Amino acid sequence: MKLFRKLISLDEALKAVLAYAKPAETEIEEIGFDDALNRVLAEDVCSTADSPPFDRAAMDGYAIRAEDSFGASPNNPVLLKLIKSQREKGKESRVEGVEIGEGECFSIQTGMALPKGSNAVVMLEYTKERGSELEIFKPVTPGKNVSFKGEDVKKGEVVLKEGKLLRAHDVGMLASLFKRSVKVYKRAKFGIMSTGDELLNPEEAEPYEGEKRIADVNSYVLAGLTEPIASSYKIGIVRDNYDKIKTAISGSLAVDSDSNYYCDGLLISGGSSVGKRDFIAGVVEDSGELVFHGVAIRPGEPTGFGIVNGKPVFILPGYPVAAISAFELLVRPFLFAVHGVKEERKRIFAVARKKIPSAVGRTDFVRVKLLCKENKNEYFVEPIGVSGSGILSSMTKSDGFVVIEENKEGVGAGEKVEVVVWE
Amino acid sequence: MKLFRKLISLDEALKAVLAYAKPAETEIEEIGFDDALNRVLAEDVCSTADSPPFDRAAMDGYAIRAEDSFGASPNNPVLLKLIKSQREKGKESRVEGVEIGEGECFSIQTGMALPKGSNAVVMLEYTKERGSELEIFKPVTPGKNVSFKGEDVKKGEVVLKEGKLLRAHDVGMLASLFKRSVKVYKRAKFGIMSTGDELLNPEEAEPYEGEKRIADVNSYVLAGLTEPIASSYKIGIVRDNYDKIKTAISGSLAVDSDSNYYCDGLLISGGSSVGKRDFIAGVVEDSGELVFHGVAIRPGEPTGFGIVNGKPVFILPGYPVAAISAFELLVRPFLFAVHGVKEERKRIFAVARKKIPSAVGRTDFVRVKLLCKENKNEYFVEPIGVSGSGILSSMTKSDGFVVIEENKEGVGAGEKVEVVVWE
Repeated sequence: MKLFRKLISLDEALKAVLAYAKPAETEIEEIGFDDALNRVLAEDVCSTADSPPFDRAAMDGYAIRAEDSFGASPNNPVLLKLIKSQREKGKESRVEGVEIGEGECFSIQTGMALPKGSNAVVMLEYTKERGSELEIFKPVTPGKNVSFKGEDVKKGEVVLKEGKLLRAHDVGMLASLFKRSVKVYKRAKFGIMSTGDELLNPEEAEPYEGEKRIADVNSYVLAGLTEPIASSYKIGIVRDNYDKIKTAISGSLAVDSDSNYYCDGLLISGGSSVGKRDFIAGVVEDSGELVFHGVAIRPGEPTGFGIVNGKPVFILPGYPVAAISAFELLVRPFLFAVHGVKEERKRIFAVARKKIPSAVGRTDFVRVKLLCKENKNEYFVEPIGVSGSGILSSMTKSDGFVVIEENKEGVGAGEKVEVVVWE
Repeated sequence: MKLFRKLISLDEALKAVLAYAKPAETEIEEIGFDDALNRVLAEDVCSTADSPPFDRAAMDGYAIRAEDSFGASPNNPVLLKLIKSQREKGKESRVEGVEIGEGECFSIQTGMALPKGSNAVVMLEYTKERGSELEIFKPVTPGKNVSFKGEDVKKGEVVLKEGKLLRAHDVGMLASLFKRSVKVYKRAKFGIMSTGDELLNPEEAEPYEGEKRIADVNSYVLAGLTEPIASSYKIGIVRDNYDKIKTAISGSLAVDSDSNYYCDGLLISGGSSVGKRDFIAGVVEDSGELVFHGVAIRPGEPTGFGIVNGKPVFILPGYPVAAISAFELLVRPFLFAVHGVKEERKRIFAVARKKIPSAVGRTDFVRVKLLCKENKNEYFVEPIGVSGSGILSSMTKSDGFVVIEENKEGVGAGEKVEVVVWE
């Protein structure tokens, strides 16, 4: 039996995979803005107009010439003439065509364009209508309660940058610009393959009493992790047979891009044991290039990466927690790079409540629980007290994870750590 | 023109809407586990078996009787007899039928069941094979490098609690339990209606030069915010006409649940002005019950809530930022309650870099940017320097928001705040 190959550090592994995530090769597609939620913008979007598009009221009240209100007070109100709009529609008056002269005013609601001649809005609460006249109890300065044209965004200004993950309000911004189609990065399609004679498809079979076989978990976990960023295609379980695995790999990476089976890359899991590990890595090596195999991360040591038909193939551990660790530490940065995501995931800084042990020379992926004492405005963090990368409950009980760098000998109680929270 | 009604506090408003979010009425459906990603669990899921399901190796190495290794050292290795499996399959040996006697050992990989008779695993690196024998250089204690049956989860133990938002690893847990179908809360369907004569459908039209009309933004923003929790159905733009709005409201809330137009509730936006505000609230009042109208939040003051045909109707401001504020402060908690979400969104505690002003007597929804100084393990926060609830760029430039409670007169520089980050 072969022993471990030499492990490379997480940094070296990251550098190697990112070298293959060439953003220049990333494909771009143009889609309707209303389909762009959660997609990554592939162009800078500029404002096509000033925002606000015209000077407008920032408050409900009356548009006036500010000068006319000077000296007004509760005991000595200024009296202005109420102008009516020529165009009435439904219950609401329209501002088009209205012009305010000296000593005149016009009823206005927040957001309405300021009528010609006016330069300020006096708030409703400082006024009182008396027939065709208005009493004003407080003076305003010119520009008061007005949002000026272009005050927020000038025409031509970049409002959404390339690389932005589009959220609900960003799609709203596209709508507000009447930007009907938008360039986004195409979602790559990653095949998800589980290997192992011990695996059962949980949608189809159950182990009989005493049978030492387990459910294929990684197909679901890896698809779930991939989907927010790229498309996933479940290839299913491939048995531990050199030819079958080789055929499955080259099959999904060689077929025509019109085919349903076409994949831009593969995530192969399985082979948590030394024998199997070398087995899958061997197939990748024989089918193309094995870039590395074995990374100093825990869990996730038996992670590998190769290129077959010019496409990325990640070899991930069979144990779900190790597969998730390898996904978060290596596959996610790769997928982000391929899809042009420029944003970093936000972290929560939290104080370790107890020691989190870790060995120098490897990067640790530690599942943690976040705790918040009442009236305390900081989080505390506790590692989930189970070990073993087969232990899925260490994930389901956790709020997120902490990465302990390879040059650190654990985290002491009271030390601050960065927590990435499950989304 | 009517003046503002009396504003109620956010707390009162929240209490009122949550009183209508009766979890008992929430419908439950049973779906395949592989469709359960991002759904909310409506049952406790118990482990159907011990996990691990059998005693298994936690390391690659050799299964032995620990007692046989006592006294082993690099200079004085213990010699054990290598047992071969009767069943070989592919490259891998099977453990079934193997029994370890005194002075015997069996090659084992991480995750494999421990063969009968053995009680420990000696790691690969402390051994050397010599033909049919194995040298061991280090003693192990009984139980060493073994994951015991039920050590992680005992049969019958709750592994996923009702109310859990199911993430990739939780779906993996369901797979590992062979739990093929799972009870989740049904996604309610909320109709999204924008009202206003000034609105244009950005998918269909553009304003001509000089026309003072704007895009319907809220249909897209509110659908985007709703979708992760509930289904959204875009009703579109309804003009400022009492009868049209009344028909649209009763239409979508009265139709048969088989109809495409059927909605479990409504989010109506528009009416950022006092006149319009009362207008829509009036329609709701005439069609059913207006529970409240006017909340002391900024932006989002003109928010209202009513019940029509026994179903919830939120009246949201027309300005997108105000609509988002009202959504985050009132609609989201309501949707979470309706869908049984028990988890709180995680917050980031960050230090205010400058003063964030706010008035006592109202709750402020402040868009902020998170900053992180290099080598500093904490975030700083800065309010986005634009005001006005029409200003969508205050959202697109922000990383999240801070809520300043009504009894607080702003946040001082250096004070800690809780930031909710956009997801």
